[in-house]
Amino acid sequence: MPERDFIARLLAPLATSAAARGLIDDAAVWAPPLGRNLVLTHDVLAAGVHYIGDEPPSDVAWKLLAVNLSDLAAMAATPAGVLLGLGLSAAEDDSWREAFVAGLGRALESFGVSLWGGDTVTGLDRAVLGCTAVGWAEPGKAMGRKGAVPGDELWVSGTIGDAGLGLAIARGEAPFDKALLNRFRRPTPRLALGAALGGVASAGMDVSDGLLIDAARLAAASGVALAIDLDAVPLSRPAANLDELLARVTAGDDYELLFSLPAGTDARGLCTTPVTRIGRVLPGAGLTLRFAGQPVPLPARLGWEHG
Amino acid sequence: MPERDFIARLLAPLATSAAARGLIDDAAVWAPPLGRNLVLTHDVLAAGVHYIGDEPPSDVAWKLLAVNLSDLAAMAATPAGVLLGLGLSAAEDDSWREAFVAGLGRALESFGVSLWGGDTVTGLDRAVLGCTAVGWAEPGKAMGRKGAVPGDELWVSGTIGDAGLGLAIARGEAPFDKALLNRFRRPTPRLALGAALGGVASAGMDVSDGLLIDAARLAAASGVALAIDLDAVPLSRPAANLDELLARVTAGDDYELLFSLPAGTDARGLCTTPVTRIGRVLPGAGLTLRFAGQPVPLPARLGWEHG
Repeated sequence: MPERDFIARLLAPLATSAAARGLIDDAAVWAPPLGRNLVLTHDVLAAGVHYIGDEPPSDVAWKLLAVNLSDLAAMAATPAGVLLGLGLSAAEDDSWREAFVAGLGRALESFGVSLWGGDTVTGLDRAVLGCTAVGWAEPGKAMGRKGAVPGDELWVSGTIGDAGLGLAIARGEAPFDKALLNRFRRPTPRLALGAALGGVASAGMDVSDGLLIDAARLAAASGVALAIDLDAVPLSRPAANLDELLARVTAGDDYELLFSLPAGTDARGLCTTPVTRIGRVLPGAGLTLRFAGQPVPLPARLGWEHG
Repeated sequence: MPERDFIARLLAPLATSAAARGLIDDAAVWAPPLGRNLVLTHDVLAAGVHYIGDEPPSDVAWKLLAVNLSDLAAMAATPAGVLLGLGLSAAEDDSWREAFVAGLGRALESFGVSLWGGDTVTGLDRAVLGCTAVGWAEPGKAMGRKGAVPGDELWVSGTIGDAGLGLAIARGEAPFDKALLNRFRRPTPRLALGAALGGVASAGMDVSDGLLIDAARLAAASGVALAIDLDAVPLSRPAANLDELLARVTAGDDYELLFSLPAGTDARGLCTTPVTRIGRVLPGAGLTLRFAGQPVPLPARLGWEHG
């Protein structure tokens, strides 16, 4: 269908907030909540790079929103609206677009966020999907990677490594398991936990490239060392051995939150999202790992390094 | 260079505002001006679709910012910050990236806008560049396509059709003319005029796909007819005949502002940007054209229709 029909017939009915102005203007106009700081992020999902390309289009729409909202959760922000940059190829035919938009509508509703606008481009060789997510936080309460201090304890939400297992299933390298595949294709941004951590956590981020590499980034930003107890890392499926465990903590796409709290603060009381204490913040730099009471050397690859 | 070096070594030095947090966090945090509405837009430039691909990288950076800031100008907004989604291919090698970022820095400074963040992706087949621009307007003063009423007069800024002539030069179809080529590659968002039109113009938009097609869109959004006097359309180079004139008013990429004002309001007093009255707002629907005192039938193609 022509681009104007894609916008007018499929996307405009989702853009129900006043800010979107029915998608007829050149930009959205939004009255932000008074006295709040705005939190803004932009992430791109490219077919063939970030997703395989044979996923159900509704799952692609879900993931595009989820990875961006996860960045807002990582900053302790409450989401308000999104703008989409949809670069499409011939592979995204009319039925793909209809299924994508149907999934987009369900994702917007699930996450409680408005579609404000964006841009649509056709004629690409492969799809490249951008999303800008905008949210807000109380002044001084936005979380960041900087701020962990020695003596703090390190926590993580949910379970780690499931999306990596799901990726193997999506690639046909492991037997089908719907729950694990969904962890890869339909991640859950930890919005309630993120909002609860604002002003409470000393530092935080989302785990998108692997627990270890993201922990190393938090340590570097805060200027501290992190000691991680691998036995404590929450898993949904037991790991048969240390190698399997190391594969889990270096797999990407978890979109769980990794955060530091003053010692003695029990994160389990903050909201209903499951959280687990996995380590401590120490003076120094870098990561140290322990497993079954013994030090474990850092694996050569800590997670996904882009480019 | 690896993606993290591209961000840390080239992009981070441009991200000097506090909102950008040195590009180390998952999102930007910005304290918006109190009591203002926010205006947000996202536009994508794809190599091979919106630009040829052999342009100087600094011109690509300029145009990426300019087309987005033009959307803010079209809403009478003052720009504050941008987020970029840079999807790059092997063609955008290290020297391309360095030149792009150098041009980006100059464009940010020229337009008085901050780099807040974004995302970088490599490994695409062709470059796809997204930009989200965020600005603000006084409540109730954001301009839109809706609001022109019969009796208003229609105005346009600058000159029309130059970018179309510049595109022909870029394609090697016309002799070199630096000024015209620059009108295609380095458009000027009409920010000062846009801000001056807030609360003054009854409707407005930017001319990105051609004067006639964009005027038809303004007419449709406002539920009015527009009568355009083709003799009055401002040109930087005279048109030899009506066919050449029609080519100018259906060429894209001008990024001038098209707006309606109550009859008798002289737009030339609003700011120093040159503006010209080109027509009138009438009851009804669609466009009517006149040239040398005679009605002119609408050309079959009014401008760029996407997809």
